[in-house]
Amino acid sequence: MNEDHEKFMNEAIALSKDSVSCGGGPFGTVIVKDGKVIGRGVNSVTKLNDPTAHGEIVAIREACTSLNSFRLDGCILYTSCEPCPMCLGAIYWSRVQEIYFANTREDAASIGFDDALIYDELSVPLRDRKIAFHQIMRGEALVAFHSWTTKKDKILY
Amino acid sequence: MNEDHEKFMNEAIALSKDSVSCGGGPFGTVIVKDGKVIGRGVNSVTKLNDPTAHGEIVAIREACTSLNSFRLDGCILYTSCEPCPMCLGAIYWSRVQEIYFANTREDAASIGFDDALIYDELSVPLRDRKIAFHQIMRGEALVAFHSWTTKKDKILY
Repeated sequence: MNEDHEKFMNEAIALSKDSVSCGGGPFGTVIVKDGKVIGRGVNSVTKLNDPTAHGEIVAIREACTSLNSFRLDGCILYTSCEPCPMCLGAIYWSRVQEIYFANTREDAASIGFDDALIYDELSVPLRDRKIAFHQIMRGEALVAFHSWTTKKDKILY
Repeated sequence: MNEDHEKFMNEAIALSKDSVSCGGGPFGTVIVKDGKVIGRGVNSVTKLNDPTAHGEIVAIREACTSLNSFRLDGCILYTSCEPCPMCLGAIYWSRVQEIYFANTREDAASIGFDDALIYDELSVPLRDRKIAFHQIMRGEALVAFHSWTTKKDKILY
């Protein structure tokens, strides 16, 4: 079983190396279900002009397409670096079961990819954040929440 | 100026209501640059089988396509509900300048969309998380980081 984990991590690391050669960020991810790779991703932010296109997000989207599902129950995610807060959120929403990572967030920071600001901001009250957060019009917005609550045929997720 | 903020928030709220009618989650987002909407998104998780397709992520991707850029400098994001940690991460990576939101995370939790687990997990050491995180093979993965560091023609982001 440990050999399998190394095999799949090797694939994630190989993707991270290929990504650098192709002009992308040095990050790769594979997602595995029942011993089979069902999603792959590399950091494609600059290539796709998409700041959300981290390796983990790309791989999660591909794995969900493979399974035709918005849930990745029973899947293992192998990523060449500890996920940033955005990707961590995506991992929780996707219900991936387990994570293997190689480089740490400190390693990423040391080459200029600094998640620390985002980690810090998440624990800071809205009024103290570096990006200004303003709340307006809650009363109007709650109407959609009430519609959701009373909708009988909704798909829960 | 306040009227503009209400106008754009009204559009985000309208999207959240339409989304419920169309079978999606009750969340809508618009992104504005220089007084013009350049990206729109609704929660499309179940429709697209994509757990990352929150309204904010969909809108960020569309706005980046509009600008042909992976950065949203000078943009304002209007969202019908306080962003979850995944979307907050995406907001920081995108460099959106300012956020307006209506419903709170507590409102979202009260109708079954509970970000609290993810917020909690982000501040918990890896070994204590509900999803198991294992570190392996850092030495091998660092090779890609070294390649990135020494690459001369890389696009920084």
